[in-house]
Order: sequence, then C-alpha cells, then structure tokens
Amino acid sequence: MPSDLFSHRLTQPLLATVAATDTPLVLAGVLLSLVVIYVGSKIGGELCDRINLPPVLGELVAGVVIGVSAFDILVFPSATEDGSGSVIMTLLQLTSNISPESVTSVFEAQSEVISVLAELGVIILLFEIGLESDLKELLRVGPQATVVAVVGVAVPFTLGTAGLILLFHTPVVPAIFAGAALTATSIGITAKVLAEIQQLTSREGQIIIGAAVLDDVLGIIVLAVVASLAREGTVEVGNVVYLIVSAAAFLVGSIWLGRLLIPVFETVVDGLKTRGQLLISALIFAFILAYIANVIQLEAILGSFAAGLVLAESQRRRELEEQILPIADMFVPIFFIAVGARTDVSVLNPFVPENREGLIVASFLLAIAIFGKLVTGLTVFGQPGINRLAIGIGMIPRGEVGLVFAAVGSASGVLSKSLNAAIIVMVIFTTFLAPPFLRLAFTKPTATAEISEESSK
Amino acid sequence: MPSDLFSHRLTQPLLATVAATDTPLVLAGVLLSLVVIYVGSKIGGELCDRINLPPVLGELVAGVVIGVSAFDILVFPSATEDGSGSVIMTLLQLTSNISPESVTSVFEAQSEVISVLAELGVIILLFEIGLESDLKELLRVGPQATVVAVVGVAVPFTLGTAGLILLFHTPVVPAIFAGAALTATSIGITAKVLAEIQQLTSREGQIIIGAAVLDDVLGIIVLAVVASLAREGTVEVGNVVYLIVSAAAFLVGSIWLGRLLIPVFETVVDGLKTRGQLLISALIFAFILAYIANVIQLEAILGSFAAGLVLAESQRRRELEEQILPIADMFVPIFFIAVGARTDVSVLNPFVPENREGLIVASFLLAIAIFGKLVTGLTVFGQPGINRLAIGIGMIPRGEVGLVFAAVGSASGVLSKSLNAAIIVMVIFTTFLAPPFLRLAFTKPTATAEISEESSK
Repeated sequence: MPSDLFSHRLTQPLLATVAATDTPLVLAGVLLSLVVIYVGSKIGGELCDRINLPPVLGELVAGVVIGVSAFDILVFPSATEDGSGSVIMTLLQLTSNISPESVTSVFEAQSEVISVLAELGVIILLFEIGLESDLKELLRVGPQATVVAVVGVAVPFTLGTAGLILLFHTPVVPAIFAGAALTATSIGITAKVLAEIQQLTSREGQIIIGAAVLDDVLGIIVLAVVASLAREGTVEVGNVVYLIVSAAAFLVGSIWLGRLLIPVFETVVDGLKTRGQLLISALIFAFILAYIANVIQLEAILGSFAAGLVLAESQRRRELEEQILPIADMFVPIFFIAVGARTDVSVLNPFVPENREGLIVASFLLAIAIFGKLVTGLTVFGQPGINRLAIGIGMIPRGEVGLVFAAVGSASGVLSKSLNAAIIVMVIFTTFLAPPFLRLAFTKPTATAEISEESSK
Repeated sequence: MPSDLFSHRLTQPLLATVAATDTPLVLAGVLLSLVVIYVGSKIGGELCDRINLPPVLGELVAGVVIGVSAFDILVFPSATEDGSGSVIMTLLQLTSNISPESVTSVFEAQSEVISVLAELGVIILLFEIGLESDLKELLRVGPQATVVAVVGVAVPFTLGTAGLILLFHTPVVPAIFAGAALTATSIGITAKVLAEIQQLTSREGQIIIGAAVLDDVLGIIVLAVVASLAREGTVEVGNVVYLIVSAAAFLVGSIWLGRLLIPVFETVVDGLKTRGQLLISALIFAFILAYIANVIQLEAILGSFAAGLVLAESQRRRELEEQILPIADMFVPIFFIAVGARTDVSVLNPFVPENREGLIVASFLLAIAIFGKLVTGLTVFGQPGINRLAIGIGMIPRGEVGLVFAAVGSASGVLSKSLNAAIIVMVIFTTFLAPPFLRLAFTKPTATAEISEESSK
C-alpha cells in the first residue's frame, strides 16, 4: 500500500513550481512599491501643504518624479518596458534570488496588483465622496449641473475637433478622438481639492461634482462612440443608444433602489454581531454597484459613488465615515501616485526638436481645454451670487479620465505619437493647473484658517 | 507637419491592446471576488458566533464551501484549473464581453491580486496582533516560549518521520518532508481566536504567541532544510546556518533598533500635517520590515509582527489601534476565506476507495500532530497555576503554514498524491479542531459574558 507514496516524484507540472517560487517575490515587489508610494505621497503632499497648495497636487508630482518620467522607481509594463528599467525590480533582484526569466512575469504581476489597488483607491475615494455628499442638495442643483456638463462636453469637443482639422489639417478620425479626449472632467482630483478646502458641500462644489458625474457619463459615451468609430469607421447607433440608456438607468436606478433599501441595510447591520459589521456591509454594497457599473461598460467609480450617495442617507453615516477614513488614507494615495507615475512628461521637453510639433498642438488643445470648461461657469442659471469662475475652474482637470482616452487611442492605433503626446500634455497641465487656481478662486481667510486647524490635528 | 499625425495607425503593438481591454475585466473579477469573500465571511462568521464558536472558524468553513471543495465559486489557478471551472469567471463571462482567449489570463491576474490581498491580510493581522501584544510580557515569557517552541517542533517531527518509515514503509525523503510539515504552528488562527476570547495578553496567550513566532522561524528553517534535501539529496550546512542566523538577527535586531527609533517615529508623525500621517507612517514601517523579512527568506508576517510589537510602545498606540481596526476588518477575511477556498477537502471523502490509504496515513499524522503539540504544555516551567492544556491546544493549528509545506512538497515532486492529501487532511483537522477546543480550555463564565458584550457593540 505505501509503496506508491513516492511514485509521483518528478511528474508534477512545472507551472506549480514557478507559481510557488514567484509568489513571495510578487508580494515583495508589492510591499516595496507600497513603501515607495507612501513615502512619495507623504513627501509630495507635505511639501505642497507647506506652500499652501493642495496635497493631492504634491502626490501627483511625487508620482511623476518616481515614475517613468524621471527616476523610473515605480514604472508600469508597456511595449518598451519589461521590468528591466524598473528600480523596484532592480532592488528586488539585488535583494532576492530572482531568476532572470522570472523578472518580467514578477514585474507584470506586481504591476497588475498595484494597478488594481490604484483602481480600488479611486473606487474608495468616490465612495467616500459620495458618502460626504448631500443627495438632496445634488438633486436640487441637478438642472444647473446638467447644463454645465453638457456645455462642458460640447464646447471643447466641437472646438477641439474643428480646430485640429481646420488649423492643423489633422485627418478626421484622430481629430474627433483628440476632441473627445478634451471632454471628461476628472471627478477624483476636483473632489479631493474641494474636500481639502471644505467646499464639497457648497453650492459651487455640488454643481461641480454633479456636473463632473454627468460629464463622466457623457465622456464615457463619447469614448465608446469614438473608439467604435476608430475601430470600424462607422458609429453603431444601437451601441450608442445602449450606452446612453444604461448609464442613465444605472445611476437613477441604483440611487432610487438604494434609498428604498436603506432600512433593509440598517436592519442587517444591526443584526450582525461580529467585527466589521457596518464596514463590510457597506463595502459589499459599494463593490456590487461598482461591479455592475463596470460590466455594463460604465466606470466602476460611478457605482461606488452611487453607493456612497445612498449610504449618506443612513443613520450610521457618521460611524461609516470614520471607518472609511483610514481605508481611504491607505488606498487613495496609490491611485494618485500611479496616475503620476504612468505619465511620461519627457514629451514636454522643448529642447528636443521632435517634441516641437506636439508642443504646438498641445498648446492649442490646452487652450481649448481650459476655455471650453471656463465658459461652463457662465451657463449656471437661477443661482444669484454663485462663484461662476470657481465652477469653470473646477471643471478643468482631466486627470485619469483624460489618460484613459490617451491610452485607448494609443492602443487602437488611431493616435500618432505626437497627437498622443499632445493629449497627455493637455491632461497634465489641466490637472496640475486646476487645483491651485480652484483654491485661489475659493480663497477666503476663514477657509484657510479652518484647513490649517483641520490638518494639524 | 501634421501629416504624420495619422501615420502610426495599425502599427501599435498588440500587447497594449490586450492590457487595455483586459484591465477593467481584472478589476471586475477582483470586485466580484471581494463581494463573494465578504458575503461568505459574514455568513460563516455570524453562524459560528451564534453557536458560540469563534467567527474565524466560520470564515474558514465559508472559504471551503465557496472554494474548490464544494461550489467552485472562488478558485485559484492550478495544474487542472485555468479559470473555466470558476463560477466567478463564468459570471464574468456572462456579464461582460470577455473573449475566450482572455479567460485564462484574466483569471490568473485576478487570482494573483486576491492572493496578494490575502497575504496583505495576514501581514496586517500580524501587525495588529503585534500592536496589541505587550513586548515586555513577551520577553518575560521568553524562556518558557522557547522550550514550548523547540519541543513542539522536535516531537512531531521525530515521531512523524519515524512513524511513517517504520509503520508505513514510506521512503526516507518524503517521510522527512511529511514530518517537517507537522512542525509549524499557525500564528494567525490561534492569535485571532485568542483575541476573540480576550486571552491575547494573558500569560498563556503570550507564551502561545511567543512560541508560535519562534516555531514559525524554526518551521521555516526546517522547510528550507527539507526542501534543499529534497532537491539535492544533501543538506547545505551553510544555508542552514544562514537561515538560523538571519532569522534570529532579524527579530532581535528589528525590535531592538525599532525601540530605539520610536522617538524619531513620533517626531516625524508630529511634524506631518496632511491626512493619514500616523497610519501611513506606521504602514511604511510595517511594510519595510515585512519586505526585509520576505527577502531574507523569512516570512513577511514576521516583519509586520515585529513592527506591531515596536509601535505598541509608542504613545500613539491607542490612536493607531483604532485606525488599523477597519483596515484589518477589510483585509483579514480575505486571508481566511482564501485559505479555506484553496483547501480541497474532497480528499477527505471516505466513500471513494482511493482515498482510504491517504485517510489511514492522515489519521496517523493527525494523531502525531495533536499529541506532539499537546505535550508542549507540560514543558512550561516556573509558572505555577498556568493552563497547560490551553497552551498545548493553542499550538495545534497548522493552517496556512502547513499548507505552504504541502504546496512546496507537492511542487517539488517529493510528495505522492496520497501523502500530500494526508498532510492536507492533517492541516484541515488541526486548524478546524483547535479553535473550539482552545475556547473550551479557556472557558470561564465571565469571559463568555465579555465576548457577547464586545461583539454586540
């Protein structure tokens, strides 16, 4: 009977061996990346805080510094990057007996983990923002937000596309793509800045957030339409209708259904007796909505934002906010550092002759990107005394959404390197310029005092 | 000039396309997995809590139920599993336009992410346990813990190896491997149970934790030695000496140095003004130590445990404990569910004739595993009135450490399927049996009252 206890020797699959030996290395790579991310985010955030700029800008700059543009400490896989240029992978090779064949697979696996953690970061950020928003206030500013969003999509798209075709003789399809890349505001960055200057629940803040949410939905529809146009040369009407209907149905439906289910949620949480009953129940709700939003071709962040909005109506809102705080502190910096690290600002260098063309196109796109959103502030109606400049500025940053456009356009082969670079430059500048100007547009002595008090706690 | 804006069309690498289209699917898979994990952990935990068993046992059982043994909802890649048998992947295919070629890569990527999240879970669990431990008390029980650890490694290893060779005529190398798999106690499971019954800081709890930490170090040395023996037929003395020295130097060194650096840590945290200053600083410290422990061939959890022990001496301990709580609530269930989900209990089925042989060997290993740790309680000296039975039982669960042995043994080809199955059965039973008996051994009416009070908060 026991004679076969030894018989399977050397007949096991090699795959399991590779996985078993590489897994600790992937973990080591993730731990090292997280240390770099946290150290970078704190240094960047604190430096910006000292010179009265929003810490989130410092986190983005720290991401650029440690990323592909400068020190190559935290880099992500690309056509030209297999891990050999990553300082983290080099350090990992120096400190562990990693085989040269494993470098690329370990690099890709740890980058995938960091990417997903970054995406969980923006999902949790939007959940927190939803939780801190006031749905009634958001619905009250709905008409204004809708106008701001529609104008903020239509103006930059039309001017950008027409300008590229007429002024720069860009072919129609890439021109439409670049125009579309000008449309979507980054909720994440604006909302973080608004939260930092305590303006998230102001009328202006609510209009900006509401418009940015709608804008994101419109932007995703535009992206889907343009990407399909780029792929097939035609626009599929059925697909466009599907996207519009599903986005509207999802947002309205999840918030309406969620509000009905709040008493059920509270009864379940009250009935649970083990640790983390409130937090885990809330995360289940947020992740389900994020999953649904993701699979119906929208963005996961819309789902978690809707979940936050719904749970903001719960009696346990304060308790939940307190528990989400450390989780957001842990996840959100991963997102901002990753956005910065992925962005290659070397295409900005004006001393390299090949960059000149891209720089001119970029300047044009940047001007349209800023103008096209600033005018949205003028369209706000029925709100006497509202800070129109702040609303316009609040809509400017493109951030991660703009980067998604650039990535999809680059991957589909529609965008040339220089046009792609021009879009990235536009995204970087809008993202980096908006926060300080937004802070400026809102500046009141009392607000500043509150922030210093808040942050020194 | 702008004529080349269109020239790169269709010349972009395909790699970028695959990555760009698959990333949202990986995120969707991770979100779905997390929802399944959280729902399972809450159902299992709450059911066990209702019948007065530790919730962690319920989380493990829930993991088994949703894992490879029963419903195949959450499964991990293996030689026979490419994602086609995963309910989560099937659901993902039903709800999104995932191409059949992408299924395996998306499955592997999302499994990798969940695996790393599970490892971060046990790292954070050990950090929290370190933070709640009392280093002075742990040093005070040092001599007792050392004796318990050494006996708890020597007895099961000797009896297991000798018994397999003499009673079952197992060849020497696999017998030594199986004997070694009997040695290492799972800190995670025991510590979680001890925390639940408020015995973490009792003398018994401190001896168990201290012994389990040493035990883990000894177990990893044994594993390294045995794995090297299995690979090369010889034991490398230099490697053994390196492992022993590095483990001792790491633990003593990091704790000694860490205690010296506590004032520096507090000064840095006091100087930071942006959100999350305490939590992020603590995580940086914990992840650096975990990384160092990982790359010097120890386990990452030893590093985070040492970090927790050190920070427990900080003046900000209470504040940090409060902030770690929700993070542990979010990450730790991923670890316990993943351990359960990976374990294939179908090898337990006594109605399948092929399992009989493994079951007999398993019964023998289980008996040695329990006996070999129970005797450790008798070796505690100089502690009158100590609960020797509780210490012995506390050392029984093998959990994730035993599963690492089984995985390495299986991958290296040393273990036959039946001996591998026998080790897994031993791991499952010790893991599942220890928590209720540990609770029983500690049972006092007051303790039970405290728990119900604690958990109903």
